[in-house]
Amino acid sequence: MHSHRPPRTTLANGKSGSGDAREASGMTLANDAPPRPALDAFLTALGDIPHETARNTVIAKSRDFFWYSPILKEQLADCAGDVIVTPRSEADVIAVARLCATHRIPLTARGGGTGNYGQAVPLQGGAVLDLTGLTAIGPVVDGTVRVGAGVKLKDIDLRTRPLGWELRMFPSTYRTATIGGFVAGGSGGVGSITYGGLAERGSLAGARVVTLEAEPQIIELRGSDVKWVHHAYGTNGIITELDIPLAPAQPWVDLAVSFADFAQLGRFCEEVARTDGIMKKLVTAVDWPIPRYLNTLQATLPEGASLGLFMIAAASLRPFDELVAAYGGEVVYRQTDVEVAASGAVPIYEYTWNHTTLQLLKRDKDVTYLQSAFPSLERVAEMGRLFGDEVIQHLEFVRAHGEIGIRALQIVRYTTAERLNEIIRIHEANGCPVYNPHTYVIEAGGMKVTDEAQLAFKRRTDPLGLLNPGKMSGWTPA
Amino acid sequence: MHSHRPPRTTLANGKSGSGDAREASGMTLANDAPPRPALDAFLTALGDIPHETARNTVIAKSRDFFWYSPILKEQLADCAGDVIVTPRSEADVIAVARLCATHRIPLTARGGGTGNYGQAVPLQGGAVLDLTGLTAIGPVVDGTVRVGAGVKLKDIDLRTRPLGWELRMFPSTYRTATIGGFVAGGSGGVGSITYGGLAERGSLAGARVVTLEAEPQIIELRGSDVKWVHHAYGTNGIITELDIPLAPAQPWVDLAVSFADFAQLGRFCEEVARTDGIMKKLVTAVDWPIPRYLNTLQATLPEGASLGLFMIAAASLRPFDELVAAYGGEVVYRQTDVEVAASGAVPIYEYTWNHTTLQLLKRDKDVTYLQSAFPSLERVAEMGRLFGDEVIQHLEFVRAHGEIGIRALQIVRYTTAERLNEIIRIHEANGCPVYNPHTYVIEAGGMKVTDEAQLAFKRRTDPLGLLNPGKMSGWTPA
Repeated sequence: MHSHRPPRTTLANGKSGSGDAREASGMTLANDAPPRPALDAFLTALGDIPHETARNTVIAKSRDFFWYSPILKEQLADCAGDVIVTPRSEADVIAVARLCATHRIPLTARGGGTGNYGQAVPLQGGAVLDLTGLTAIGPVVDGTVRVGAGVKLKDIDLRTRPLGWELRMFPSTYRTATIGGFVAGGSGGVGSITYGGLAERGSLAGARVVTLEAEPQIIELRGSDVKWVHHAYGTNGIITELDIPLAPAQPWVDLAVSFADFAQLGRFCEEVARTDGIMKKLVTAVDWPIPRYLNTLQATLPEGASLGLFMIAAASLRPFDELVAAYGGEVVYRQTDVEVAASGAVPIYEYTWNHTTLQLLKRDKDVTYLQSAFPSLERVAEMGRLFGDEVIQHLEFVRAHGEIGIRALQIVRYTTAERLNEIIRIHEANGCPVYNPHTYVIEAGGMKVTDEAQLAFKRRTDPLGLLNPGKMSGWTPA
Repeated sequence: MHSHRPPRTTLANGKSGSGDAREASGMTLANDAPPRPALDAFLTALGDIPHETARNTVIAKSRDFFWYSPILKEQLADCAGDVIVTPRSEADVIAVARLCATHRIPLTARGGGTGNYGQAVPLQGGAVLDLTGLTAIGPVVDGTVRVGAGVKLKDIDLRTRPLGWELRMFPSTYRTATIGGFVAGGSGGVGSITYGGLAERGSLAGARVVTLEAEPQIIELRGSDVKWVHHAYGTNGIITELDIPLAPAQPWVDLAVSFADFAQLGRFCEEVARTDGIMKKLVTAVDWPIPRYLNTLQATLPEGASLGLFMIAAASLRPFDELVAAYGGEVVYRQTDVEVAASGAVPIYEYTWNHTTLQLLKRDKDVTYLQSAFPSLERVAEMGRLFGDEVIQHLEFVRAHGEIGIRALQIVRYTTAERLNEIIRIHEANGCPVYNPHTYVIEAGGMKVTDEAQLAFKRRTDPLGLLNPGKMSGWTPA
């Protein structure tokens, strides 16, 4: 079996003005997938390190949730690795890195494969490194825990909550995503309304990184240096362990609150976000018809209702309820975390962030989404007037360096790539930055420009350019 | 012994433009202190409820820390109650309230007597109700604890920290102040950089209040209604119990960081305040020569240094140290909360908020202070240029409804009341609001205007106008 990769001609990503990224991607992709003899030698050399070349398995483990994007869906449909390698330990990772260098085999690291930008999809075949076997969880020391890159986010909390600590933030894929994948491909999520994003100083405390060389090195990044590998898609080192600062744990309550008017819901959410006396982990607002797609919550909602989704600390339920009354909302769902665990109910966060999009895609294949920021609720309303039903509002409130921020993962009724680009352009022209999720190139998404520190670190960790090739457009072979 | 009260002619408070408050105060003070026969009947009726009329005791327990203000010091010097009553229970409180109504005896409630605005000083004699005997601490339910009004703040933490919970905020008088006094007279303090002030929705969950009537009622205030008695100086009910929402506990570290330049320290503090990945309870900046007065910290400081004082979560020390290095500061003091407890060192918060003023007043009787807000660090620098050594900067960073705020308790080299008023006027003319601490009238301090809800509640709880008379200027006898 040989690897599949996208033809050069379809590489254009949906981002307006990302010509440089396109060119750079094209350049990287000009490299061939590994030749058969090199691959065979590599496979033989793997020895007892678990690996799998069965086509179905390889294809399945070469994918992530890029298919949320019709553009990525087309571009990445035929991409796959040649072998899935599943290291049992860091020693295995080092051995695989050494073999990849020796035999010039591209290596794409993956965790739970829950990302949305194709960051886990190999563009040039080679080895897909499934890190879900690295599941060690260390003790909590000074509110920080060292974990293997393959630990599922929920398993960190399962271990640390009885000790009084919990994750500060996690994506809506909490139950299936790994910490390594979150750090390598994510930006924030549930909890960011209190603790900001992963990029905020203090959100990450350390990372252990294996280089891809004939003699792989282990590099321990401390403190802010972890940003070199954060959101770098595994292009500049293989993360094997992470030091994650935690928050003191407390009980949470899932809530859904309906409003007749989306603008009023927005004001309510902003007030909840601003009220420092209400401890929260999640402040989400979705406009009709999104609530119709949120299965366990839909029953009681009238046509046209918008819905707020929240995780509120038990100690803050009363002031929250006061605000619901003051703003004219109605609590339509309320379950404590203990009740959710006991009943097996869907946790409320699985209706938020990019799970909102997933809930719609389950029943409507013609939608996709955007990722953007709004400077104000007024601008949200303006975009609503401008696009009508074509763009359905989905807001996520966050804290960003000491200030409340409005982020959005709008649902878009997709027609053509051209129209999608136009929608993006109109948002940006109106002061609403878009972090384009319809590209697998780091710099064309949220990063906008090449992160020089990440690039410098790549020169150090991946001199042969074999780590997830084609994803970091700023890199060119030496 | 008869009560002492200020002559009407010295009642003017230092606040510019507070003519209304002055007049209203004068009106209230026109009432006489209780006549001897009424007082004697009251004392007899007290029966076995503990009380004390020995002059030294009565004078000592009729004072608080109003003497930080040279203006209040003169106005209140001779004020004292006639008897100190120390209820053992809420039943005792009710009995005393009934007797005060029957015999028309003014009642001034007090906790630790650590306030600074004379709020615990009786203007018309009568009974001083020492509530430090109400020391019950209930279980923590949903992160909230019910406590007696007389519980010391530190004793709440001593009880709840082993259960994983701690106070969200406390004044620098944490070791001696009561929760009832804090709620009745305070506004925020250590912890407000994360959880905002007491006035923020969600900071207070409930209050149990006894009215002063022939048949005293017990009123349970829930949620935001607690604001009716917050910062009302005990003029509209006797608080016997409070429901206090807590934060999940975590280990803290005391730090002092020196900077050569105060402006740079300010920028550093603002960055610490804004960094959501750094969990903190205290962000304080003091300009030279204040550091010279901070005993246990002074040894290593060069002449002219300014000092930042911090409580940082153990998990956030590394990013904090990174910022210290980035901004060119030097950590000159670092002790974990465990080390402080073991060594008996002065906790860092006792150099901050109004303890800063106290540390100076211990060695320099010619200083006093202001309370103000700054819209920006630029304005801090402007006021610094304007006043030079006459006003020494002391900044406290807080969160206020979702935004970082700069508060100040400037040290002022006091000359005359006129000059103090002028300094206040200049600050306000420059967009820096002053919450005048040189007045015992609620509305002339931070409140600025009469809180109609507090006033309405006073009509309900104190129809005879006997609760801490003279402090709420908006109230007039029916």
